[in-house]
Amino acid sequence: MHILVTGAAGMLGRKLTERLVRDGGLNGRQIDKLTLLDVMPPTNPTSFAGKTDMVAADLSMPGKAARAIEDRPNIIFHLAGVVSGEAELDFDKGYRVNLDGTRALLEAIRASGDGYRPRLVYTSSIAVFGAPFPESIPDDFHLTPLTSYGTQKAIGEALLADYTRRGFCDGVGIRLPSIVVRPGKPNKAASGFFSGIIREPLAGVEAALPVSETVVHTHASPRAAIGFLMHAAGLAGDALGARINLAMPGVCCTVAEQIASLRRIAGERVAARIRRAHDPLVARIVDGWPQRIEARRARELGFKAESSFDEIVRIHIDEDRGGTFVD
Amino acid sequence: MHILVTGAAGMLGRKLTERLVRDGGLNGRQIDKLTLLDVMPPTNPTSFAGKTDMVAADLSMPGKAARAIEDRPNIIFHLAGVVSGEAELDFDKGYRVNLDGTRALLEAIRASGDGYRPRLVYTSSIAVFGAPFPESIPDDFHLTPLTSYGTQKAIGEALLADYTRRGFCDGVGIRLPSIVVRPGKPNKAASGFFSGIIREPLAGVEAALPVSETVVHTHASPRAAIGFLMHAAGLAGDALGARINLAMPGVCCTVAEQIASLRRIAGERVAARIRRAHDPLVARIVDGWPQRIEARRARELGFKAESSFDEIVRIHIDEDRGGTFVD
Repeated sequence: MHILVTGAAGMLGRKLTERLVRDGGLNGRQIDKLTLLDVMPPTNPTSFAGKTDMVAADLSMPGKAARAIEDRPNIIFHLAGVVSGEAELDFDKGYRVNLDGTRALLEAIRASGDGYRPRLVYTSSIAVFGAPFPESIPDDFHLTPLTSYGTQKAIGEALLADYTRRGFCDGVGIRLPSIVVRPGKPNKAASGFFSGIIREPLAGVEAALPVSETVVHTHASPRAAIGFLMHAAGLAGDALGARINLAMPGVCCTVAEQIASLRRIAGERVAARIRRAHDPLVARIVDGWPQRIEARRARELGFKAESSFDEIVRIHIDEDRGGTFVD
Repeated sequence: MHILVTGAAGMLGRKLTERLVRDGGLNGRQIDKLTLLDVMPPTNPTSFAGKTDMVAADLSMPGKAARAIEDRPNIIFHLAGVVSGEAELDFDKGYRVNLDGTRALLEAIRASGDGYRPRLVYTSSIAVFGAPFPESIPDDFHLTPLTSYGTQKAIGEALLADYTRRGFCDGVGIRLPSIVVRPGKPNKAASGFFSGIIREPLAGVEAALPVSETVVHTHASPRAAIGFLMHAAGLAGDALGARINLAMPGVCCTVAEQIASLRRIAGERVAARIRRAHDPLVARIVDGWPQRIEARRARELGFKAESSFDEIVRIHIDEDRGGTFVD
């Protein structure tokens, strides 16, 4: 089996690649080839027995998408994209990468003309939803994004569904909740603090909290996100019917509950490294975000998230900090 | 005031132009100039006192959208588009006209760079909805179109909302129900028979009914549709908030009730000109369409449809047949 990962140099792309290399297979089939694509050259996985193809390319540039699918990958994980904060700051770049890049990939698949119909797993986001919300967002709630990023993701979902309905590809769109705890440096996403207030204190560093502790949000660990992607890759197409875009489950909790988990697991000294620093811009953006996601269909289809925020904190310590933290 | 109508040679475009010319103004302001744009040259309205500019152009072609807004129309009625049947048969043309054309218009407005922020009334469609449906579709029901046309309209709505949110334009999207009775020749829309079974019998001609009489659908007359457009043009932007795309109201009835109206108004001989001719393709498409639209927000905002299908039949006889029909 041949797998293409776009956005392979990003956080989820790297973790997905590691997992695929470690497993050597996906859904019971051996992986013979991995094509890893990103605008910056992805790292070649050293311990992979199969063939690898490293591609530095922007899918929105002419010919790049056709080149990316030249060897007809069976499964495509389309993770490439500009994050929410950046898409809001740079309107042109957001539409070029998130909309035109996705459309170029779909068009390249359609243009293949040889019956090629890959499973295409598209990472959407709960940013497709926009306030005001009911207490819990059902699967049939309308998409009224309040950011350009959310708009671009909603459009990507619509295109994916139509190209799938027409038989050009075999798409599954998964709306990720906030992925927490993100390892490494903060990125430009407005949701960055949800990870920062756990990651930085565990590393012995102060972290700013730009919103109120009463803010409610839905989270899943990077490990759960990789699980969603792999599960989506193996879903039978007819299990989905025409509604191929699914909100993913997650742990729904307040910022105060996040902090309580951190305190329970790492102690008061660590939790005290969180500094209240209200940021009206971030607070306004986060106010427009969904709080509780029902994700009934996804749960019924076997997508699994963590069952508590404690579990999310422990996964971060285990997976990204070698089991330890700075007391 | 300067008004631009795209798709001005189409049925709604012609009726809207007639109405604007007859009124000479819109929402209490005099119309000084009308720009009428279509891929085929629109007819110059003879009795208009102000300036007219007739433009034959496809908005998706380079430079055409910029040219169309060169003189900074205050209000743009964006009606241009390929209908559902044609968008399904010609995938490339549908995306080019319905998606790229709309995006080009939005981009041209954004590129003006001189604070230009026109009211842009966008005609969407209830084809943005896809089965299965609840008994009545509420305003917050998700968009899961089952046609390429519906997908393109849903994407147009998303773009319009984002460009409006960012302050580039002042958009209102209106989801039209089926417009019945369409005058003139049948077009390529799969919904054409909803008009055909009224229009043709009144003209003394047999009409095919490709679906079952139990099919439920929501209708509004062309006169109501023009009313929606003009009302949308005059809505205060802050009346809408962030959710600028609205499902329009209409008369919800079965095909049997449509036929009963025709019989009541024009007699048995006219109604007997409807010939049952089941068409599985049309029946399948129509099965995926919404039946009952709640349109609560639109009604609250003052959008008005007919209150019975009888009224819709009478409007057709009055407006398109000079008050008579072939007995």
